[in-house]
Amino acid sequence: MTQAKIKHALSVTRETDFAQWYQEVIAEAEMAEESGVRGCMVIKPWGYGIWERIQQLMDARIKAAGVENCYFPLFIPLSYFAKEAEHVEGFAKEMAVVTHHRLIGDGKGGLMPDPEAKLEEPLIVRPTSETVIGAAMARWVQSWRDLPLLTNQWANVVRWEMRTRMFLRTSEFLWQEGHTAHADRDDAMAETLRALEMYRTFAEEVLAMPVVAGEKPENERFPGAVATYSIEAMMQDGKALQAGTSHYLGTGFAEAAGIRYQDREGKQALCHTASWGVSTRMIGGVIMTHGDDDGLRVPPRIAPQQIVILPMLREDDGDEALLAYCEEIRARLAAMTALGEPVRVLLDKRPGKATQKRWAWVKKGAPLILEIGGRDAAGGMVSWLRRDRLWREDGKPNFTAENRDAFLGSAVFELEAIQRALHDEARCKRDANITRGIASMDALAAFYAEDQRYPGWVELSWSRPTGAELDQVVQRLKALKLTIRNTPMDAEPVSGDCFFTGKPAVERIYVARAY
Amino acid sequence: MTQAKIKHALSVTRETDFAQWYQEVIAEAEMAEESGVRGCMVIKPWGYGIWERIQQLMDARIKAAGVENCYFPLFIPLSYFAKEAEHVEGFAKEMAVVTHHRLIGDGKGGLMPDPEAKLEEPLIVRPTSETVIGAAMARWVQSWRDLPLLTNQWANVVRWEMRTRMFLRTSEFLWQEGHTAHADRDDAMAETLRALEMYRTFAEEVLAMPVVAGEKPENERFPGAVATYSIEAMMQDGKALQAGTSHYLGTGFAEAAGIRYQDREGKQALCHTASWGVSTRMIGGVIMTHGDDDGLRVPPRIAPQQIVILPMLREDDGDEALLAYCEEIRARLAAMTALGEPVRVLLDKRPGKATQKRWAWVKKGAPLILEIGGRDAAGGMVSWLRRDRLWREDGKPNFTAENRDAFLGSAVFELEAIQRALHDEARCKRDANITRGIASMDALAAFYAEDQRYPGWVELSWSRPTGAELDQVVQRLKALKLTIRNTPMDAEPVSGDCFFTGKPAVERIYVARAY
Repeated sequence: MTQAKIKHALSVTRETDFAQWYQEVIAEAEMAEESGVRGCMVIKPWGYGIWERIQQLMDARIKAAGVENCYFPLFIPLSYFAKEAEHVEGFAKEMAVVTHHRLIGDGKGGLMPDPEAKLEEPLIVRPTSETVIGAAMARWVQSWRDLPLLTNQWANVVRWEMRTRMFLRTSEFLWQEGHTAHADRDDAMAETLRALEMYRTFAEEVLAMPVVAGEKPENERFPGAVATYSIEAMMQDGKALQAGTSHYLGTGFAEAAGIRYQDREGKQALCHTASWGVSTRMIGGVIMTHGDDDGLRVPPRIAPQQIVILPMLREDDGDEALLAYCEEIRARLAAMTALGEPVRVLLDKRPGKATQKRWAWVKKGAPLILEIGGRDAAGGMVSWLRRDRLWREDGKPNFTAENRDAFLGSAVFELEAIQRALHDEARCKRDANITRGIASMDALAAFYAEDQRYPGWVELSWSRPTGAELDQVVQRLKALKLTIRNTPMDAEPVSGDCFFTGKPAVERIYVARAY
Repeated sequence: MTQAKIKHALSVTRETDFAQWYQEVIAEAEMAEESGVRGCMVIKPWGYGIWERIQQLMDARIKAAGVENCYFPLFIPLSYFAKEAEHVEGFAKEMAVVTHHRLIGDGKGGLMPDPEAKLEEPLIVRPTSETVIGAAMARWVQSWRDLPLLTNQWANVVRWEMRTRMFLRTSEFLWQEGHTAHADRDDAMAETLRALEMYRTFAEEVLAMPVVAGEKPENERFPGAVATYSIEAMMQDGKALQAGTSHYLGTGFAEAAGIRYQDREGKQALCHTASWGVSTRMIGGVIMTHGDDDGLRVPPRIAPQQIVILPMLREDDGDEALLAYCEEIRARLAAMTALGEPVRVLLDKRPGKATQKRWAWVKKGAPLILEIGGRDAAGGMVSWLRRDRLWREDGKPNFTAENRDAFLGSAVFELEAIQRALHDEARCKRDANITRGIASMDALAAFYAEDQRYPGWVELSWSRPTGAELDQVVQRLKALKLTIRNTPMDAEPVSGDCFFTGKPAVERIYVARAY
């Protein structure tokens, strides 16, 4: 009723221009900015801090599964790609090519690549490390005793992108790539699905981002994969974001790379391999899942700072007592454990007005913000704000003034409540935007026709066509700017006919516009 | 007396061929290997695990100093280097140059850079991020309120090296680079020295590697720096290894990058900047400080596994009880805290003979190795081995058979003792190999003349010559393959004449052969 009274912190709302809103969140939350280098961004402390949290928590899960981290070269010789023609197709060959290893003066006061220092074989900046890790695995695997070989790498990779969008599609991005080799199909498939489930639970528990885990259709498989699985999240504009993938590669990749082992009977056999990855793209997913018209809202588990204390400094004699009071609160919070880790709390003593600083932290999405003035300090009080419940009905910030000890007693509970609330809110939004029962292509076209609405995803039943029959389906959907996202793992059995072919349906799929 | 009886785990000793021994440690400890890509290595799990430990503990110290991590682009436009001619000289212009962004078929079944996809401006793979971070700082710093700006990045960098050696000099390496901007000289210099001291204490406390912190001579300054400081460690062959540097850059770098701020009076002023870094080179230092003729010895603080339990499996009915016994010991150790962190313990259940596995872990340098057989399990015993005290006088491995609970009661103490013992041993070796009192260039030449000896470092007093006078000194030392390492921060005052110029001496320096 009083929405009109609220003066939001951002100048663009999700409703008016979602793409512009996304850019504004990133800028105003000081997460990243253009670097001046085409397609590459600078990830600023708040954005990189979120990535460090994601990395740390994901890495713990990767290690707990017995996977070991390694580091492989940034450069891959051109010939490795020539071997893997199918691979190259998959990356549209848009890769950064190193051709020289020295600069010299160009005689005009500038520099140029030294023609004398041309490489005999160009080097490619890795778009993925599949080939170079495959070559290492071929050296490392000799016998069944060496299997499974479970390897992961955290690295930067480069895919030359013509149209870039920060965190979602950049020429350089940060990711982890798991690569594993196994004795047989069952073991490799179990690893593929273990990684998928790791990603699903990570997205839901850590990012508070509900996802659908499932198999991608044949046309969306990673080049060379026998089966590709993904987790798919719904953004607030109703589009899907593929937030992680896991691939069972059969023996084809092992054959190309020569990954063979001697089995228990002494015979040579090809390994079955799998690979899986997530990237800084996840941060784009967090923004578009949890952001609102006041900026970002960071789930507490990945917030670089979970609680920010803002002393209302007056640059007078009272500041010392105020700061001492704030510091004591900081120290007590820092000694607490929330969500299984020590509470991350910042006392922001930088010069500047508390109100300005408040809005900076609101836009960054710090989960809990405390404002403390001289009178609060004298009276043993604090004023605190939950970022996920920012506004009162009267259009004012929803501060709670409370006795300090009462607040300290409930701070951990509040952080845990915010983590849960963000997840539940996102889950409700998503579930409300999945539509079932659309019966014809015309109805589907009509459903997605209107422009300003966020129609979300559509669930359909299909006969799982392949080859040319699938191509037809893909083309018909493409005409509506739609793609098949995946076949959810945990769906109920289907009955009836395929939406596309009229044959008996065998499974459900999600269809959506996508990033 | 019984040295002859010992059959060491490596085929080459430090004494016979130090360079070959170094390579063998890396191979046998499974730390890294050649990648097939020129000048780049594959860092294997044990080597990368050590890097992860270094990263984690260094990052905590960096963050504790209020420095924030960011991420900057891998690629730097050529023009950024043209601006910084002095900079380019410093890296000898040996850099990887990206000239194309696409591959196409070469008509002969292979691939080649697409001539249609030539970049208008070549991109350089960062040899350091100085220029691109400077450009960001110029955007980020407006007012005195924004200072100091304390930024750090963990990244891979590339400097094209003609002669590479694993961990010590590779074309691609991993490092952290701190870049900071300050209002005045004092604040920038304080940060430069804070970083230096952080590196010194890190090397000594974490890597158990004694170092000398001090200022580099003028000729060894980072290009554009007003002062460069380093930590220098002595390797077991008596050579010096520069294991970290910190630079005070004055205002020159800020001027080139345009890093200006409005001071409290409203006037524009140039920032003073500093930068500091350490890299995977530190791992080379750990190997050459602590390795012995049986492989690596990893200080417990950076050991990916501090304790390894080897059950002597017989593939019979007794294995189950043995594994249960070992698992209980593992769990009890994992619940303990040593050196401020949870104990890292591995129960190595892989198939294979316990003796083979023992030697694999000896070569990797796991600090404590437990061997447990069926009879031990039945009798409540363990056999344990300290990697830093591997051999008994009779030439046999120095196992202690002990009641399980007695061992569990002392395990943390043993880890802490190993950390200290490795440091003390290295410190004694170093101090024994610093020579003072050499009075003439002829005596210096004679000192370094013999080939098979490890003469270590020489401490000299000098008048701190500059310019052409310093050049002469540098050339005379170069003829003996010697370099000036640094002027130690904590040296006693000097008296007497300069070793080189005969003028009154003002400070001490270390002279050494170096990596």
